[in-house]
Amino acid sequence: MSKWTVKLGAAELNDVLSDAFPSDARIDLVREVSPGRVRLVRPFHASMLRPGELISGPTLMNLADNAAYVLVMAHVGAELMAVTTSLTIQFLRGAKPGEIHAEAQLLTLGRRLAVCDVRLWTESPERLAAQATITYARAG
Amino acid sequence: MSKWTVKLGAAELNDVLSDAFPSDARIDLVREVSPGRVRLVRPFHASMLRPGELISGPTLMNLADNAAYVLVMAHVGAELMAVTTSLTIQFLRGAKPGEIHAEAQLLTLGRRLAVCDVRLWTESPERLAAQATITYARAG
Amino acid sequence: MSKWTVKLGAAELNDVLSDAFPSDARIDLVREVSPGRVRLVRPFHASMLRPGELISGPTLMNLADNAAYVLVMAHVGAELMAVTTSLTIQFLRGAKPGEIHAEAQLLTLGRRLAVCDVRLWTESPERLAAQATITYARAG
Amino acid sequence: MSKWTVKLGAAELNDVLSDAFPSDARIDLVREVSPGRVRLVRPFHASMLRPGELISGPTLMNLADNAAYVLVMAHVGAELMAVTTSLTIQFLRGAKPGEIHAEAQLLTLGRRLAVCDVRLWTESPERLAAQATITYARAG
Repeated sequence: MSKWTVKLGAAELNDVLSDAFPSDARIDLVREVSPGRVRLVRPFHASMLRPGELISGPTLMNLADNAAYVLVMAHVGAELMAVTTSLTIQFLRGAKPGEIHAEAQLLTLGRRLAVCDVRLWTESPERLAAQATITYARAG
Repeated sequence: MSKWTVKLGAAELNDVLSDAFPSDARIDLVREVSPGRVRLVRPFHASMLRPGELISGPTLMNLADNAAYVLVMAHVGAELMAVTTSLTIQFLRGAKPGEIHAEAQLLTLGRRLAVCDVRLWTESPERLAAQATITYARAG
Repeated sequence: MSKWTVKLGAAELNDVLSDAFPSDARIDLVREVSPGRVRLVRPFHASMLRPGELISGPTLMNLADNAAYVLVMAHVGAELMAVTTSLTIQFLRGAKPGEIHAEAQLLTLGRRLAVCDVRLWTESPERLAAQATITYARAG
Repeated sequence: MSKWTVKLGAAELNDVLSDAFPSDARIDLVREVSPGRVRLVRPFHASMLRPGELISGPTLMNLADNAAYVLVMAHVGAELMAVTTSLTIQFLRGAKPGEIHAEAQLLTLGRRLAVCDVRLWTESPERLAAQATITYARAG
């Protein structure tokens, strides 16, 4: 989908995240930005685990939400004023310990709403741990 | 995602649909089946329109549900006993009149649950009308 | 939730529906309107059934969408210009044949978005067939 | 909905939570349990805030997930083996700082799936901050 235009690249987005969350040791790293897509990685930390030695649902939801935020910011710019209005996540299989990958794709980016598809995995993109659809309302 | 194995091809799936819905003039046509994916087309009919000359939401939901059903059947076989347990659809833009395309992708196919991503459009796949995530429970 | 104000009662809403869908034999009937809530009934018709003698998913989705539309209209007025932006439905159990009841409740009604909870049943409100959450964008 | 039977009351559920998360200073408190419903409170902590002085989305998602977990456990017992399979949350308005209330209601509790409705607020139940629908798969 070449119709999207990137306004902020990976280096710029990482700078924005570092400024916004200076004290967060487990900050997400933006690895790749292309029109309509971003890829992030969240380093693993043992505190993410739940009984059963799987990564917790809230950790995955939090990363999905963050990936959608970064995706919208990459296409709209850092002056972004947007709020998540809905998030739907399907947990597809237990997420084994390891760094968590998120690939987020724009489904639409309008004047008022943005909708993003996010896929999460630890083992391999062929073994998705979760899929989320996230809607942002852009401030008027 | 080459891990999925196709059990029924497009011709076989169209036969199953014809047998199941013999009197439905607006039957969906399965155009393409590949591991983890199917593509369907629903011929346009004026009764699908709502005020504003756009295709109605229920028409799109119905096609999304059908595409997920065909996708699961393509990978499980015609003896399928499955029920939709949830459907989430995002309406991304008004769907202009025309045949409706559905591309459905398996996100997971387990012993008990299947989760499918479905994208719908009339104008072009770069201008999606809707995205749906659909969960099937496979009968025990 | 007494904070909502009803603008159109059941009789007026039924008139609006009759005018909008004059040829639809299976029109929904608005039974009750109170602040923040409406109750509708869709008369049963054998064409709603799917294999297994249960009411089809698309029938339930269509009624849920309609109930949310009526609910918003009851509180905003007939000049309503609104579009469904998302619908999430959980199918909770098979819906046995019979008239279908829908109870819709406003969760929020803002300048730009309305969010509705809809519950559907045939047998009894203690045996829900489905629950839906529906978002409307109000035209600017 | 008097058809549900409570197996664990508020005191027992609070004990289970204390044992499960001994080091978590911001543990949720179960306030009330009745057939088909539980009410929880999460004490406020400044770390929950996001720019704009509102409670963050991940905080609300985490509480919603926890409330559904407690709700299922209240009706199934502490030997619960269940995993969240999907979560859909609608953010209805900004959540002002304060203790967060969660009211969770069973929509269905079957042999394999449980579906819960959760409503969250800080100011008042008439000013909901979010509504979530959460599905649990019960281990076989």
